Amino acid sequence: MKTILNTPIALKLSACIGLSEHELEILGQLLKQSREIRVGQDLVQQGETNQAAFILMSGWVCSYKIQADGTRQIVDFQIPGDFLGVRSVLFHTSDHNIEPITEVEVCEILIPRLLDTFAQHPRLAMALLWALSRDEAMVVEHLVNIGRRNPAERMAHFLLELGARLSLIGAGSKTGFTCPLTQPLLADALGLSAVHVNRVLRQLREVGMATFRDGQVVFDNYDRLVAFADFDSSYLDQAGPLLT
Amino acid sequence: MKTILNTPIALKLSACIGLSEHELEILGQLLKQSREIRVGQDLVQQGETNQAAFILMSGWVCSYKIQADGTRQIVDFQIPGDFLGVRSVLFHTSDHNIEPITEVEVCEILIPRLLDTFAQHPRLAMALLWALSRDEAMVVEHLVNIGRRNPAERMAHFLLELGARLSLIGAGSKTGFTCPLTQPLLADALGLSAVHVNRVLRQLREVGMATFRDGQVVFDNYDRLVAFADFDSSYLDQAGPLLT
Repeated sequence: MKTILNTPIALKLSACIGLSEHELEILGQLLKQSREIRVGQDLVQQGETNQAAFILMSGWVCSYKIQADGTRQIVDFQIPGDFLGVRSVLFHTSDHNIEPITEVEVCEILIPRLLDTFAQHPRLAMALLWALSRDEAMVVEHLVNIGRRNPAERMAHFLLELGARLSLIGAGSKTGFTCPLTQPLLADALGLSAVHVNRVLRQLREVGMATFRDGQVVFDNYDRLVAFADFDSSYLDQAGPLLT
Repeated sequence: MKTILNTPIALKLSACIGLSEHELEILGQLLKQSREIRVGQDLVQQGETNQAAFILMSGWVCSYKIQADGTRQIVDFQIPGDFLGVRSVLFHTSDHNIEPITEVEVCEILIPRLLDTFAQHPRLAMALLWALSRDEAMVVEHLVNIGRRNPAERMAHFLLELGARLSLIGAGSKTGFTCPLTQPLLADALGLSAVHVNRVLRQLREVGMATFRDGQVVFDNYDRLVAFADFDSSYLDQAGPLLT
């Protein structure tokens, strides 16, 4: 059980339910067959049918939509423990793309199998619903971010959200985290130009709040950054399990 | 069965699965106790615990988030057949508010009861997952709307989305729909000022594409409006049931 207990998906779902040994075993059965995907191979393609859903075991991906004029809006980045493409398999055609940012390891999940598992294990079903609800809560917060916050607050909020999400799977803390995102990726996610991203990051660094350099985000003054971005992490709902 | 078959929730879920008589009966049992809520009584409150989830039977509500400075971002409007507040009951505290725009009729749903129902009826479980996925797909599209479209395209896209959603429950068509939304509500949803909303609506009217007046949205030229907004309804996934 030990190996499953330490997977990002188990660490994450533990924020919703205290997983029993039996539930960990069931979860482990869903994670049996994993494969690696390299950068450049899409996981899910907008407009295509018969797409698959996955649990991300390691690495980072981004989900995005392309508009007719070729511009893209990154909706979210997914980190280990996240579900990928559940919407794609329930819809006639996928409404978004998912592509790896780093080399990733994924476990494919078949919806009939998933529904069957959850029919027999309602607590796990609740944990899945919770995880999907949390994904939606993040998209909602990104909408508020782009709709209501200025560029510097937007960036600060984004970095704090990533830090909080990563801390849940043991990959981040109040001091910072390792981050493979490039400035063009940040620009596409935050609705800014790459030049603007550069300026905003310099601004956060110069006032001593956060530094993003060489693949490392460092929270130079976590509390000031939280106050500046008006960051309230309750929408991530990771205070601890509702059901023990 | 006839009465349940014609409820908005049954009409909507029929876009995912062809509901059998037995499934309609099960759905009907979830809808037994309804109550009316007046404008001014919140359904779900941000930051509060022990919130309830509902199926909206009639009327319109909006879900929104308030920021520390008092500004609000409307995330979506919900119409009959929509689930309300599922996220609120799965989270420690609700991350959003839901308030009625018109007088509404709702059926409260208890999550243990819902999970129990869906454990026994996996096709209904799939339809629920589909509905929640569709809600998320709409929030994603609103993110693209605010992040990547100019105010006139944004408004056009928004009106077309509402029309398509309403057509699924028999309350809208390519000619238009009845709409209780005020200009301040549109402004809070689209990230525009009320003055800007007024100007954009005039613009769409003057070019002969759409008119919103006296609680009626009229699509004066549906096809041109679709082309103008680059509206592709596939993210609403309402082409017909995947499972018959």
